[in-house]
Amino acid sequence: MTIHMNLGNDSYDIVVEKGILSKARELLNLNRRVLIVTDSGVPSEYSKKLSEQCKSGTIYTVPEGEASKSLEYFGKLLEVMLEHNFSRKDCVVAVGGGVVGDLAGFAASAYMRGIDFYNIPTTLLSQIDSSIGGKTAINFGGMKNIVGAFYQPKKVLIDPELLKTLPARQISNGLAEAVKMSLTSDKKLFELFEKEDIESNLEKIIISSLNIKKSVVEQDEKEQGLRKILNFGHTVGHGIESSENLTELYHGECVALGMLPMCSEKIRPRVIEVLRKCNLFRSIEYDWDKIREAAFHDKKADGDTVTVTTVKEIGSFELKVMKCTQVIEEAKRCLEDESI
Amino acid sequence: MTIHMNLGNDSYDIVVEKGILSKARELLNLNRRVLIVTDSGVPSEYSKKLSEQCKSGTIYTVPEGEASKSLEYFGKLLEVMLEHNFSRKDCVVAVGGGVVGDLAGFAASAYMRGIDFYNIPTTLLSQIDSSIGGKTAINFGGMKNIVGAFYQPKKVLIDPELLKTLPARQISNGLAEAVKMSLTSDKKLFELFEKEDIESNLEKIIISSLNIKKSVVEQDEKEQGLRKILNFGHTVGHGIESSENLTELYHGECVALGMLPMCSEKIRPRVIEVLRKCNLFRSIEYDWDKIREAAFHDKKADGDTVTVTTVKEIGSFELKVMKCTQVIEEAKRCLEDESI
Repeated sequence: MTIHMNLGNDSYDIVVEKGILSKARELLNLNRRVLIVTDSGVPSEYSKKLSEQCKSGTIYTVPEGEASKSLEYFGKLLEVMLEHNFSRKDCVVAVGGGVVGDLAGFAASAYMRGIDFYNIPTTLLSQIDSSIGGKTAINFGGMKNIVGAFYQPKKVLIDPELLKTLPARQISNGLAEAVKMSLTSDKKLFELFEKEDIESNLEKIIISSLNIKKSVVEQDEKEQGLRKILNFGHTVGHGIESSENLTELYHGECVALGMLPMCSEKIRPRVIEVLRKCNLFRSIEYDWDKIREAAFHDKKADGDTVTVTTVKEIGSFELKVMKCTQVIEEAKRCLEDESI
Repeated sequence: MTIHMNLGNDSYDIVVEKGILSKARELLNLNRRVLIVTDSGVPSEYSKKLSEQCKSGTIYTVPEGEASKSLEYFGKLLEVMLEHNFSRKDCVVAVGGGVVGDLAGFAASAYMRGIDFYNIPTTLLSQIDSSIGGKTAINFGGMKNIVGAFYQPKKVLIDPELLKTLPARQISNGLAEAVKMSLTSDKKLFELFEKEDIESNLEKIIISSLNIKKSVVEQDEKEQGLRKILNFGHTVGHGIESSENLTELYHGECVALGMLPMCSEKIRPRVIEVLRKCNLFRSIEYDWDKIREAAFHDKKADGDTVTVTTVKEIGSFELKVMKCTQVIEEAKRCLEDESI
């Protein structure tokens, strides 16, 4: 299954196919110097399998976790490319989750002002979401994704086989973003979550999610407007994610929590049921002042008010300007209910 | 005089006018947070004059010289923007030469994946060349401009008044790039160098050079082909510039030397005369093995051969594939002649 991302000169294909990692050479130009970036949490056989298909492959493994999305590791990747005499015609491939893709993509965008970048996402979250759309970034000064570039990959290979080694909690983490996209944009996908077995439908869920994201990104590559709907759940979600002592929560888990207060009372019970089915949290107990501070020291905040995406009816959305304080009050009221 | 750079969504105006720095507020949106980046070699009254026109201006001064085009100072500029809570709607202004413009432009391109960038070049070299075209960069691992982004400014203000404080050698440094552009693209401009008084024609020289560069960049924004003619003289020039112990030579001085071997025997005497008039070197004594190594460990090299721009007749050019060794032999033969 090939999905074509239509972005003028920056267009590219996303190929979804079981076992595709073993056939990467047929789809990517690996007949040159290739920097393969992966992390210590990704099974090393994945990057090795790719390296074997390269004319001249170098694997660089960063430590697992957000801390690797740093200016320091950005510099290290550039150093490796320099040491290996990379020219403008060589390339970078990410083999890993969002951390690896964001970091490697930013390094590829900056080396000689941009060399080819391929992404082979290995987590459900990155297969569904972060591997496409061209947002690359590192964290800086305690702020997530504050430094980076809009830089589209030349191709994305999605191999659902790779998910077999993924821990169950990481599957839930990815499902959260798929539920998010279904809520704003695809009623049928949401109903699949409600009615069908999830595990046996993963490939279908990936493809539906990619098609939603494709349509949004094609209309708004540089996040000037529409693309904000992809941030549904992220205002409060980022606040939770960035809060001290809550670092043990995954991104998708935080986004799932962040979505709930942005849903109408009418649909919320259905959303809660789907989150339960995906093994995602529906409530949280924490210091809401800290969440507010973390949420609105965020790039999405704008003075005293913030534009949030809300969902009244499943498969549609409304942008709403809300006071930051009101957003937090709603979230608190909604998420402190432990009975759900 | 306004020159419009036509680059689709990335289009912008270059405004050339004496005294325009004092009227920047009328042309730039300074009614927001503004990071003004300058260096210790630029008269501080220039950045102050701009700051006074900003709603909320912060001046950051880097040390004069290439060493400031580093990952370290890139990080420092990002830190300053974070500390001052810069949002996507704020902006960066460069007030200085190429070092400041390249560094500040790259920081602007990366902060939140890109905020507005204005350039107010203060040297002849940057007014003629580096302030337009959208190539931003830092040096890394001993390599010039190896890390950066293609990122167009929102506006460029060129104030020829600012050149009054510029040392004579810096004027020569800028003239070298103007001579370079005239050789490949503008016979009339070259004849102006031959026949007219240079100092009293500076504004005319700036505008002619900008128009040449505009035309080249519009046709080839991302340096896929034609833009290589702007690198006329740069293959050997970069080699000289990057060579140990030759660091006291300015960029333009090196480019002037690099152009000579790429001119036909027929026109070379005329070029030598113009370089003399501009107070630029026409010969050099140095270890050519070192220059070769520095030149071809360069991103413009490609295996054993290199594509160079040559000029047979003034105002036109030819791309020529030459062996790297041959380029150096030609340069040596041509530039070791002290009599010129």
